Amino acid sequence: MKKSGAIRWFLSLLLLAAGLTGANAKDQIPLADYIRPFVGAQGEGNTYPGPSAPFGMIQISPDTDKTNWNTDSGYEYTDPTILGFSLTHLSGTGCPDLGDFLFMPQVGRQDFVSGPKDQPELGYQSVFSHDDEAASAGYYKVKLKKSGATVELAAGERAGILRFTFPASDAASIMTDLNHVINGNRWRVAQARVRIEDNSTITGFHLVNGWAKERYLYFAARYSRPFDSAEIISSGKPVIYNTYRFRSHNEAAGTNLQFFAKYKTSPGEVIQVKVAVSAVSAANALANLDAEIPDWDFEKLVAATREKWNQELSRIEIEGSPEQKATFYTSLYHAFLVPNLYQDLNGEYRGFDQNIHRAKGFTEYSVFSLWDTFRAEHPLLALIQEPRDSDMINSILAHYDQSVDHLLPMWELQGNETWCMIGYHAVPVIVDGYFKGVKGFDLKHAYEAMKATATNPDYDSVAAYAKLGWVPCDQEDESLSKTLEYAYDDWCLAQMAKALGKTDDYQTFMSRAASYTNVYDASIGWMRPKDSHGNWRAPFDPHVFGGSDSNDVTEATSSQYSWFVPQDVTGLIALMGGKEKFIEKLDSLFSAEQTEAFKKDLSTNDLRGCIGEYWHGNEPSHHVIYLYSYAGQPWKAAERLHQVVSTQYGSQPGSLCGNDDCGQMSAWYLFTCLGFYPVCPASDYYVIGAPQIPRAAMKLSNGKKFTMIAENISDQNIYVQSVRLNGKAWDSPFLPARAVSSGGTLVFNMGPHPSEWGTGSTAPD
Amino acid sequence: MKKSGAIRWFLSLLLLAAGLTGANAKDQIPLADYIRPFVGAQGEGNTYPGPSAPFGMIQISPDTDKTNWNTDSGYEYTDPTILGFSLTHLSGTGCPDLGDFLFMPQVGRQDFVSGPKDQPELGYQSVFSHDDEAASAGYYKVKLKKSGATVELAAGERAGILRFTFPASDAASIMTDLNHVINGNRWRVAQARVRIEDNSTITGFHLVNGWAKERYLYFAARYSRPFDSAEIISSGKPVIYNTYRFRSHNEAAGTNLQFFAKYKTSPGEVIQVKVAVSAVSAANALANLDAEIPDWDFEKLVAATREKWNQELSRIEIEGSPEQKATFYTSLYHAFLVPNLYQDLNGEYRGFDQNIHRAKGFTEYSVFSLWDTFRAEHPLLALIQEPRDSDMINSILAHYDQSVDHLLPMWELQGNETWCMIGYHAVPVIVDGYFKGVKGFDLKHAYEAMKATATNPDYDSVAAYAKLGWVPCDQEDESLSKTLEYAYDDWCLAQMAKALGKTDDYQTFMSRAASYTNVYDASIGWMRPKDSHGNWRAPFDPHVFGGSDSNDVTEATSSQYSWFVPQDVTGLIALMGGKEKFIEKLDSLFSAEQTEAFKKDLSTNDLRGCIGEYWHGNEPSHHVIYLYSYAGQPWKAAERLHQVVSTQYGSQPGSLCGNDDCGQMSAWYLFTCLGFYPVCPASDYYVIGAPQIPRAAMKLSNGKKFTMIAENISDQNIYVQSVRLNGKAWDSPFLPARAVSSGGTLVFNMGPHPSEWGTGSTAPD
Repeated sequence: MKKSGAIRWFLSLLLLAAGLTGANAKDQIPLADYIRPFVGAQGEGNTYPGPSAPFGMIQISPDTDKTNWNTDSGYEYTDPTILGFSLTHLSGTGCPDLGDFLFMPQVGRQDFVSGPKDQPELGYQSVFSHDDEAASAGYYKVKLKKSGATVELAAGERAGILRFTFPASDAASIMTDLNHVINGNRWRVAQARVRIEDNSTITGFHLVNGWAKERYLYFAARYSRPFDSAEIISSGKPVIYNTYRFRSHNEAAGTNLQFFAKYKTSPGEVIQVKVAVSAVSAANALANLDAEIPDWDFEKLVAATREKWNQELSRIEIEGSPEQKATFYTSLYHAFLVPNLYQDLNGEYRGFDQNIHRAKGFTEYSVFSLWDTFRAEHPLLALIQEPRDSDMINSILAHYDQSVDHLLPMWELQGNETWCMIGYHAVPVIVDGYFKGVKGFDLKHAYEAMKATATNPDYDSVAAYAKLGWVPCDQEDESLSKTLEYAYDDWCLAQMAKALGKTDDYQTFMSRAASYTNVYDASIGWMRPKDSHGNWRAPFDPHVFGGSDSNDVTEATSSQYSWFVPQDVTGLIALMGGKEKFIEKLDSLFSAEQTEAFKKDLSTNDLRGCIGEYWHGNEPSHHVIYLYSYAGQPWKAAERLHQVVSTQYGSQPGSLCGNDDCGQMSAWYLFTCLGFYPVCPASDYYVIGAPQIPRAAMKLSNGKKFTMIAENISDQNIYVQSVRLNGKAWDSPFLPARAVSSGGTLVFNMGPHPSEWGTGSTAPD
Repeated sequence: MKKSGAIRWFLSLLLLAAGLTGANAKDQIPLADYIRPFVGAQGEGNTYPGPSAPFGMIQISPDTDKTNWNTDSGYEYTDPTILGFSLTHLSGTGCPDLGDFLFMPQVGRQDFVSGPKDQPELGYQSVFSHDDEAASAGYYKVKLKKSGATVELAAGERAGILRFTFPASDAASIMTDLNHVINGNRWRVAQARVRIEDNSTITGFHLVNGWAKERYLYFAARYSRPFDSAEIISSGKPVIYNTYRFRSHNEAAGTNLQFFAKYKTSPGEVIQVKVAVSAVSAANALANLDAEIPDWDFEKLVAATREKWNQELSRIEIEGSPEQKATFYTSLYHAFLVPNLYQDLNGEYRGFDQNIHRAKGFTEYSVFSLWDTFRAEHPLLALIQEPRDSDMINSILAHYDQSVDHLLPMWELQGNETWCMIGYHAVPVIVDGYFKGVKGFDLKHAYEAMKATATNPDYDSVAAYAKLGWVPCDQEDESLSKTLEYAYDDWCLAQMAKALGKTDDYQTFMSRAASYTNVYDASIGWMRPKDSHGNWRAPFDPHVFGGSDSNDVTEATSSQYSWFVPQDVTGLIALMGGKEKFIEKLDSLFSAEQTEAFKKDLSTNDLRGCIGEYWHGNEPSHHVIYLYSYAGQPWKAAERLHQVVSTQYGSQPGSLCGNDDCGQMSAWYLFTCLGFYPVCPASDYYVIGAPQIPRAAMKLSNGKKFTMIAENISDQNIYVQSVRLNGKAWDSPFLPARAVSSGGTLVFNMGPHPSEWGTGSTAPD
């Protein structure tokens, strides 16, 4: 060991030790301070700026829009008005929903509709300024121009606090709109109920026909000051007794309900509202609330959630510029927001069958954006959030048990299957978890569920795929993407079969895993849809979305999707004519001229995420840059990775060029910063690209530490010159999974020019 | 003891002993055979003919209409078509609801709407003939002309069986319409769901915005033969996968859903469907089903429910003509249908707060038509169904606990308060139960609930009533009726206060009980609404419904309502100028000419229930005939009672002239047959009228026996000549409650002319 290495080793130990406290060794700035909740809140990122505990069940955040299909989290940074503050939010999805139970302070006139966006003076919406707005880990604040009220938000696991600071007014109120949902102009509240339980407590409920077609959510709210008076509005009219036969003014059921807590306020008077949610019942919401927040200490809740974030973020301690740290820890924050806890304190949750279940031996989670998150989000959680990933796998298996179709979930949202996207990517989540040491789930049960899903006779032409070797484009939409993704999922399943000694199944699913070869059209050099008779789709353009006027490719072009053979990149390279031609084709993806035909389905924001036809804004491209490493040119990967990290990520509201997709966009960034990426989850290796930060120490869930050091890294020194693993030279861009999981140190030496490092290796089998 | 008396006494013992077997001593015909399920199914009776266990949770019955506001049970005997067979029904209410989950066999074309009533060839409705229809205790059968299928129904407590006998067909089906509700053209299904659990099992759910504004009901169904195929229809279209992204054909959520179990049938093929309901969850419905009906034995279920009816009916053994027995036991059947069990086998039920509760120490019941049933139905149950009446009181108290307004229920329907009718008649139910020996409920809790209800500051001008001594007609609808009924309810509460030693409360509520005097206008000789300034309502007509163009009197005229002072008939007589004038006025009620103004709000059926302005078809009149006994002319009561029994009751579909109102119309008949009636429930006496059957032996819940013998009774001998109680002469028309509850024998001697019997007594204090 060289002296300088020993000193560095000693220093790194010190840093790691410091990391245990959750504070940053060098500058002592708590890690949670690097969270920039507005990142992704402008444009396509579709994140929300309000507070949430890690993987929390409640996400209290301002909504600036509810009808725009593209404002899926409810908040768009460029919007001029805030409609109010609702209790639940999706993080980074491409489809709107949630936004349950909107709270809004009003002074003077009491409106019960938010009003048209272009007429902020109408309705309860209020103009605001970002100058009057602030957000940090577990905290959000804004001053509303219309009412002059300041709103502060804090969130725990299932409960939170809204703190309102009012001007003096004879007619101040806090409204709750039960009809508010982030509805993209499509969803609707099918039923709602509100009850004034006592002079400072309400409970409520609504059933929403949304992206989740039958979604039940309950809430409870306790007010720090008894109402001077209270009023329920139903379909625009006060609920009052009409002198005929009693009609309670203390409760109402209907589709369009608002509740007003009314006060005469003194100048600067603070009124707090504690809130909690439950998918089971109002009683459970109230129990969640009283147990989680027994007092009225807003600051205490902010501090507690902030400390949770400090602890969670300390799982990866990095060195880097403040900007790098802000981007990195905000990404880690996004990766740790979803999936969401979906179980009341008493253990009850609403299952896929809409029955009330009690999780036995695990904690139930919801919001599984699996088509996105199997790629890097779950592989990250498997490494550093193993107990939670285990809970998530158990949740996925419970959903299978409750599924009427005996299918693993595809895109699960609060007890509902949305059937969004394609494939059966619960399989790689489970198999990657298994191989990466995620414990605590029933392997036999998991295998049965995966096999049943992969052989379901009804699901998305899986049967035809199994018979033909491809999904026939004359029988099924998105057939090209489905063929490629089934093949990968089947490869994962085959690995599990092998590990369990199920040789026949292994053969069957390995055979299916090779199906990608059936849809490669050598004559055009791209993957191409094929019909049930074996004929290629014609006309077909590999450079337009969907492939042609048909919808054969999922949210992508064939030029983007043709790379999706993570289970056999070597085979793909051979199919494409060898490494040289493969690289040529890969180069062409980045250098492609963006034709009008290519651009027509992409927004300005989307195009910002494009490099040629490479589109970082959507998941099919996420592993593509790393393919250079398979083909012997890891330095090209380094170039592109640096380019993407520099242009597609950052600490500003508009920094994300595409949907964060429940943490997947962020997880890509996190792995990439560390210098490696799970190109093929469920395999036993990662692919080395090029690190993007000087140093990172990762506390693995198995108790081991893995440290990455990028010597000499700078904006110019982006190329890997050499690598040492635990002090020994490591010349391959393929990093065994056990090299990470067993702990150790990976040291990169970076330089300003491409090097020969890693060019001579071939991919693992 | 005279010799003849001793012989009779011996004979009566023999009869009582025979009665214990549940069979009729004389003819050995099982009592359940006297049940005529069609009684009340034509016209205003609003009963249903399908099978139900005593107080059962499920009531499977044919529906002939769902939109007619007056066909509240779903079945009108004169209708030509049957829409199908739904699982839940209200018995005798004046408002439509339930009719959940309609099953209908189809052959050939498969319709998913019932079609217009006047075009039976359209839709799934089928013409039928009463010749092909039969109903008995726990059993119903009909042959449908359209499909040629025969449908038989059997019901247990929470589960039942539908047995379909099909003709040969390549396209037979059993449809379930989840969108069917007995809706009176007002109610709607807000959400529904159906799931094909396996190839012979479905579960389903709907949330109905009906009379009960937010009513959740779940069902499960198991089919004796696996489906050849199955199909879900949503809003008129088959639920199929559209080749884009998976859409399960095994489940659907929406507002308008039908399920088809499809079969190729052989001639005369029998397919059975076991069904069960739950207000909690589909899982509970399935558990109820499997536990209650583990096998496929239709006849066994019919026999079991029939035997339950034999047992229940044996609580009163009578002598009489077959017609008298049919009328009597059908009335007892109706009195024992409602309130309904509302608790799953695992003890869970849906509470007034829509939370799921577990009944502790009692069984939860639902469907409390208290404005009706406090009069005679609950007093009857208190005598001979004490354990159930105790459960019902506990259910009522649970509803109070769950009520957001801290009110006892007014008109409870499946976890909802409908706020139907007026008063707070849970109070007489509880107090009468208490004084009649109903045990097993918490007295302190009950008293607190009653007092809180009677002093609620918001409920129907109770506060103004307490202050002024009347409900002011300028502030409240139905003020006259409310004043009178509050006063009676308050008297009941005062009796309880006295019994508990709460002297102040006793004084307060006795003072309120005298409020009736405040609304008696001596100048017109009738009760009259008064405004908040003490002015009489003008114009006011005591002979028109509501009293004038206003709505001061509830479903009645003042001439009908002025008699509602059951707590102080002596005081009322004095107010009206003494016995002579009182009788004159009472006579005038029966002899009144029915003016056009009087008749305009009454249907032909209603008018059939009228004798002059006396209207037996609605409850305010029910105690009125017995008032003759207070005024010294019990023989006039005898005349009118005989007239009503002869003309308003019977064994035919159209025999009931008014709503059976969850057993109240029937309970009036039962008491009247026995010769006495609870004019003032919660008092310690009954009022003797005139018996209508030769003999009855009642097994009281306290283990005692009470026997009534009407010597020489005939259609001519309708007048009481003398009475002996336990062998001793009894000259008063007031029968102490303890004379009944301690068991014994009441012997009437009947004759063809009025006698002096009972004319010299005064009412108890």
